[in-house]
Amino acid sequence: MMAPNTSLCRLLKPTALELHSASLSPAGRCLPLVPRCRYSRTVGSAPAKKERVLILGSGWAGYALARSLSRRKYDCSVISPRGYFVFTPLLAGTAVGTLEFRAILEPVRRAGVGFYQGWADDIDFRHKKVLVEPNALDDMAGRTVIPSKQSKEKAVKVAKFEVPYDKLVIAVGAYSQTFGIEGVREHANFLRDIGDARRIRLRVLSLFEQCSYPSASTDDVQVASTPGAPTPLTEADKRKLLHFAIVGGGPTGIEYAAELHDLIHEDLAKLYPELVPLVRITVYDVAPKVLPMFDEALAKYAMNTFDRQGITIKTKHHLQRLSLDDGYLGTEHGAIKIKIQEYGDEEEYAGMVVWSTGLMQNPLVEKLVNKAFIPVQPHTEPVTHHILKDKRTGGIVVDPYLRARITTSETTTEPDEAKATLDDVFVIGDCAVMENNRTLPKTAQVASQQATYLAARLNAGDVTEKEFKFRNWGTLTYLGNWKAIHQSHADELRGWVAWILWRGAYLTRSMSWRNKILVPVHWFISWLFGRGISRF
Amino acid sequence: MMAPNTSLCRLLKPTALELHSASLSPAGRCLPLVPRCRYSRTVGSAPAKKERVLILGSGWAGYALARSLSRRKYDCSVISPRGYFVFTPLLAGTAVGTLEFRAILEPVRRAGVGFYQGWADDIDFRHKKVLVEPNALDDMAGRTVIPSKQSKEKAVKVAKFEVPYDKLVIAVGAYSQTFGIEGVREHANFLRDIGDARRIRLRVLSLFEQCSYPSASTDDVQVASTPGAPTPLTEADKRKLLHFAIVGGGPTGIEYAAELHDLIHEDLAKLYPELVPLVRITVYDVAPKVLPMFDEALAKYAMNTFDRQGITIKTKHHLQRLSLDDGYLGTEHGAIKIKIQEYGDEEEYAGMVVWSTGLMQNPLVEKLVNKAFIPVQPHTEPVTHHILKDKRTGGIVVDPYLRARITTSETTTEPDEAKATLDDVFVIGDCAVMENNRTLPKTAQVASQQATYLAARLNAGDVTEKEFKFRNWGTLTYLGNWKAIHQSHADELRGWVAWILWRGAYLTRSMSWRNKILVPVHWFISWLFGRGISRF
Repeated sequence: MMAPNTSLCRLLKPTALELHSASLSPAGRCLPLVPRCRYSRTVGSAPAKKERVLILGSGWAGYALARSLSRRKYDCSVISPRGYFVFTPLLAGTAVGTLEFRAILEPVRRAGVGFYQGWADDIDFRHKKVLVEPNALDDMAGRTVIPSKQSKEKAVKVAKFEVPYDKLVIAVGAYSQTFGIEGVREHANFLRDIGDARRIRLRVLSLFEQCSYPSASTDDVQVASTPGAPTPLTEADKRKLLHFAIVGGGPTGIEYAAELHDLIHEDLAKLYPELVPLVRITVYDVAPKVLPMFDEALAKYAMNTFDRQGITIKTKHHLQRLSLDDGYLGTEHGAIKIKIQEYGDEEEYAGMVVWSTGLMQNPLVEKLVNKAFIPVQPHTEPVTHHILKDKRTGGIVVDPYLRARITTSETTTEPDEAKATLDDVFVIGDCAVMENNRTLPKTAQVASQQATYLAARLNAGDVTEKEFKFRNWGTLTYLGNWKAIHQSHADELRGWVAWILWRGAYLTRSMSWRNKILVPVHWFISWLFGRGISRF
Repeated sequence: MMAPNTSLCRLLKPTALELHSASLSPAGRCLPLVPRCRYSRTVGSAPAKKERVLILGSGWAGYALARSLSRRKYDCSVISPRGYFVFTPLLAGTAVGTLEFRAILEPVRRAGVGFYQGWADDIDFRHKKVLVEPNALDDMAGRTVIPSKQSKEKAVKVAKFEVPYDKLVIAVGAYSQTFGIEGVREHANFLRDIGDARRIRLRVLSLFEQCSYPSASTDDVQVASTPGAPTPLTEADKRKLLHFAIVGGGPTGIEYAAELHDLIHEDLAKLYPELVPLVRITVYDVAPKVLPMFDEALAKYAMNTFDRQGITIKTKHHLQRLSLDDGYLGTEHGAIKIKIQEYGDEEEYAGMVVWSTGLMQNPLVEKLVNKAFIPVQPHTEPVTHHILKDKRTGGIVVDPYLRARITTSETTTEPDEAKATLDDVFVIGDCAVMENNRTLPKTAQVASQQATYLAARLNAGDVTEKEFKFRNWGTLTYLGNWKAIHQSHADELRGWVAWILWRGAYLTRSMSWRNKILVPVHWFISWLFGRGISRF
């Protein structure tokens, strides 16, 4: 809609940035009306040269840092393949139409930083430059793309370019782990980005629509059965298509199963009553129990809750292959065949497979930990170094101040006695491994605490003044039907109380004021009128 | 989110349908809790057999009728390629991110009628059956598909089936008119369905993102110029890509131009300041003036307003071909070449072409007016008849009660002396041509008045009791920057007043309570925080 252009309205109406910054660090509050992006220097509205902080990634680590870094002190730019931050805890909610997609997105450019949409392709630590591979194409935006040759080729349409930095923050996160299982990349849906949520939503709704077509002729409809023409769906076909398989019993998988259950039993049951008996939801996991981060009692409670809701949990099951059903509609619109070790040759079928089995290292990180370079630093001799790589996870080892460790030893996973760091290269989020606490989980909580810590230290200008300490706020998982579980050192909660805590926590953490308003509005509207069920 | 399952909450919370029906005809208010769809009969919750009313189409005519037809009296089903009604006057608003897509959609199934998603492929008037070609695929949903062989083949995945009727209402609307101009179907964007709006939005934002990449090396960035690698965008490239061409000077084209102008100058200007000088918006029309439905003064006012906003209007221009720029990125992501008769060989370039040059007959209508059949009706002899076709538009001629006229004459555009009708076949909306008022415009206003009239007549059970009369409520067009024009017999308005009227009118007409709440919320949020600019 149109912004008022009268001075009155200008007075009435704070700018997006003023409001946005209200939820930010004090530094944020002094943003000018036109966001300070890298152009404004060329436009000439900015003071003298500042230190250039370049942030790779726009997730929980990168975006939170970009928001709270001092604009007075630093000239901040972000490089990320997507132009927004996704509030991931609510992603499952958007995938079932409870929330609008946009209500959980925060555009990076609105944070008032410079932005280049693309992948950081390589880093020259000696000359302090990042090579950027642009990505401005619609079809690449918002999707989890497990890097494949084709997808990259598609993306390279614009010339690569190099962006220099004074301080670099690597927060590129991690990719979904497929364990190289055949067919996963082609046929499974991930749930890590907004485009994933959209495609899952479309798929669920179109499966119900497909299955609502008449199976056979009745007094009501005559199914055309001309030879050569496709045959109508049988009830067996529909049972295949209405089986929803979720692989991975972590919070993401469990919460999606819960949200999907709510969607089907609260909304779709009214619209497709005759299909509900055919629906199955199954969660597969290789481990002996789901939700490993919760203690026995809470995990048991979760499994009982699912049991009552008719969601099947199959632990100790090993998926070996996904392929397309060669039967009815042997196409992307048909069922998916799932080969499971425990079932032998007899394969399972599903209309959709949601894949959420943990994370693997980002290709950039692999490239970095395997490259030799000569750092320019006073306190190290000009000899070849490597980034220190964590043996177990392959991540980048950082010191207690989140600076990348480097080593001269041949085996890049062994620290040398010098224990040097790249003083102007910080690593936070999923791709960082703290040498003094290697077991920190790859969670949004860790990433955002590291971002907050680093922003404070950089704004204060004393990076090594105090070490980063992780404070566990506890874990929350939604179980569907107004129930959740919460666990922390202090307490354990389950059911309604935990659910309210869950909603509250998300609400207050939801980033901008825009979304602080929109999310509860959508929750209320969906509760009152039902979820959005239109496909587009 | 989850609906409460306690009786307390059940008491507190009206069902979607109860609320929905609150905005409907009295008939709507007596909907049962589970919507009466065709299944409910098989489920057994419904009384004895009722007359089956089958509605083809879910637009202004079809959906409005389906909502207000008596559930007591009729068993109502809808056949439409899309599962929802689109509130088209606000489509341009969603295309620029002012409104959420879903806020202008009304799912047909939520209206409590039976629904088959697909195209009505053919009609057997003698045996009263409609042949349905199913369409449940994601990629077909929500897009304006100018029927082509491929698109049809893609869609045929499920067996066709026949749905019988007692009364039939043909409200299939019309398709976008391309005049068979080369390259329009492939390279132009239409603006008639929600998927069109989404693609336009993605395209605009990705063009700005593409053009934000550095053109050449500066102190800030080094553009990699390895031989063979793509060259960076020059300023000339960016001028091509940031030219937005709108073809057709009717309300749709004009309003989209206005909304696009607002998006660029209120939101994108803050985020891409250096690109704004390169942007051009041009509206092309073959006619000597735009907005022909407005009188000279208002049209002039509109053109002056556009002039001040820097939107160019080029009347008396004839587009002859659209093709891809063979230069930079000679791909779907590059610029589009526009051949214009008046420019001779020198071609114009644009990053996006929005096509809105009027309507052509729906293929189903063409099929129907060309088929011979023997109607089963007491007062006509069993001789071959044709549906009577309007000479000028090719639409179906209807009598003052909106019933399809049939003729025995050879030339299907000539009425015979009998002037018979198909008493159980009604035609409303864009595909109907009233014999006593052939100049009625193809507008939402006419379609919805016809739907309201027909619903009232059918609910009362006296189809021929009084004739349909069109009452002109006047025309409104938004011109951007908080200005609009309005014209009716009674009055003429321009500027702010008209804009408020415009918003108010849409608000009250916006269909369900859900959207009556959501639309103003989104308007307010967009005004306060700016429009949504994330791509997904």
